[in-house]
Amino acid sequence: MNITLCCTDTKAEPWLAGLRAAFPEATVDVWQPGSAQADVAVVWAPPQRFLDEQQALKALFNIGAGVDALLKLHLPPGVRVVRLDDAGMSVQMAEYVCHAVIRHFREFDGYEADMKAGKWSYRRPRDRKDFAVGVMGLGVLGERVARALRVFDFPVHGWSRTPKAIEGVFTHSGEVGLETFLSASRVLVNLLPLTPDTQDILNRQTLGRLQPGGYLINVARGAHLVDADLLALLDSGHLAGATLDVFRTEPLPPEHPFWQHPQITLTPHTSARTLRDESIAQIAGKIRALEAGQPIAGVVDAIRGY
Amino acid sequence: MNITLCCTDTKAEPWLAGLRAAFPEATVDVWQPGSAQADVAVVWAPPQRFLDEQQALKALFNIGAGVDALLKLHLPPGVRVVRLDDAGMSVQMAEYVCHAVIRHFREFDGYEADMKAGKWSYRRPRDRKDFAVGVMGLGVLGERVARALRVFDFPVHGWSRTPKAIEGVFTHSGEVGLETFLSASRVLVNLLPLTPDTQDILNRQTLGRLQPGGYLINVARGAHLVDADLLALLDSGHLAGATLDVFRTEPLPPEHPFWQHPQITLTPHTSARTLRDESIAQIAGKIRALEAGQPIAGVVDAIRGY
Repeated sequence: MNITLCCTDTKAEPWLAGLRAAFPEATVDVWQPGSAQADVAVVWAPPQRFLDEQQALKALFNIGAGVDALLKLHLPPGVRVVRLDDAGMSVQMAEYVCHAVIRHFREFDGYEADMKAGKWSYRRPRDRKDFAVGVMGLGVLGERVARALRVFDFPVHGWSRTPKAIEGVFTHSGEVGLETFLSASRVLVNLLPLTPDTQDILNRQTLGRLQPGGYLINVARGAHLVDADLLALLDSGHLAGATLDVFRTEPLPPEHPFWQHPQITLTPHTSARTLRDESIAQIAGKIRALEAGQPIAGVVDAIRGY
Repeated sequence: MNITLCCTDTKAEPWLAGLRAAFPEATVDVWQPGSAQADVAVVWAPPQRFLDEQQALKALFNIGAGVDALLKLHLPPGVRVVRLDDAGMSVQMAEYVCHAVIRHFREFDGYEADMKAGKWSYRRPRDRKDFAVGVMGLGVLGERVARALRVFDFPVHGWSRTPKAIEGVFTHSGEVGLETFLSASRVLVNLLPLTPDTQDILNRQTLGRLQPGGYLINVARGAHLVDADLLALLDSGHLAGATLDVFRTEPLPPEHPFWQHPQITLTPHTSARTLRDESIAQIAGKIRALEAGQPIAGVVDAIRGY
């Protein structure tokens, strides 16, 4: 078996070592223009030239949960695109989102700023019944986030393309369920895959349906959000704030108005990072399963887009 | 029945209204010097004079989980002191502690500060296996906090005076178990009741046993912590930081070195606030149970101190 690694912006050595240890009988190498034809590739943001050259690929493993960038490329015929299922990402998402929701609900930003200014302040406690959280996207990550939020007794709503049931969560689905879902939510968490259907889904109309004092947490993709619409709804006072981890262009360009906005908390696309050891173990297991002709999780439906 | 309210620093009207609605047949009033003898009192930080005058009290309900201040006073003979069991406080504690642990573990403070400075930064992800959290005190609040931390896959240790078992948590107890508990923990969460045995329990020796890069979260009482010892361990580099919600003197005096310490995050005793409606409902239920001669939870053992 020939396994090729083609990961832009990722240190290759530890991945090579991990895959070589898992497949001592195989050839595992980093792709270079003109490399031999590989059976399996492990990729992150590969160039089109790599895909054009590698016409014998049976499977293409993406080091990440989102395959939107990969699906924009022209893929070899018949290749299976496989995304990471979890590999330590869902717990990171649960952490990131719960931290952001609690920080906003409990006003810890304000308390800490007051204390830094030498002020022992008092704020009236808020009622969690008024802070329903809506989670858009109920895949592995969304479901784990929704369950974690329930630990803190928030009312939790969930929305997905097709109907899903999660204990303790009010679930909605499809075009028909979107409006009810949005009007029931005060804090909106976006965990959708990026597809032509979901691009720009966070806009003036949808965000405007959130309850007054709404709050946005975007941890999926920057292209889900119409930046100008978020700014307008913050300015109008309909939204109270936002925590954003992903952006249309990353790193966020220096002139972007998000940088200095007082109601926006920013992090540099760090909500859920690919953990190398967990990912190598998962990919190795799936390669073995494919060799044995067994079904595997995470095969992307190119039409659906995730 | 005669119910008297004596709550320093608390607005009396809503409590009076709530208790009067629950006990339409009773007299419910705010104590004033010379008031009639009450059967039951609902108190927060009452003056000694109140207790000296009220010699017919059968039960004294404390609006809070900690009764350390109350037990320092001279109480009427035979009175039962009852503390709040939960009344919405355990979920707030779980929120506060999970927020502080995640914020420290994920370095969100650093990321947010970098973004505010216009810097798109990278930090190497940390391994949660290296961030075992130790919870001191496994009552209603401590147990809920320990269970919530498990949701985020942290290794969790618990320590209590007497042995306890909590699923998924490594529990330790008594003097003998303290050393093992401390050396197994990197983040220490204090939720102990304040008693003569636990005063000053967070000191150079105990905090020094935490793993290098240790972190303290104190949400119990300021008198548990020897302030100078925390500062010395931060200066020496053995501890990485602390989040403190409670202090020996509150509000924290203006000249106190905690205010401006770069490694200490402060909040103004807001980790778990008494929620009025939940508390009134709980106290009313317990008064009815006492009238009916039934056992109630939360009766304080004055010798044990909680």
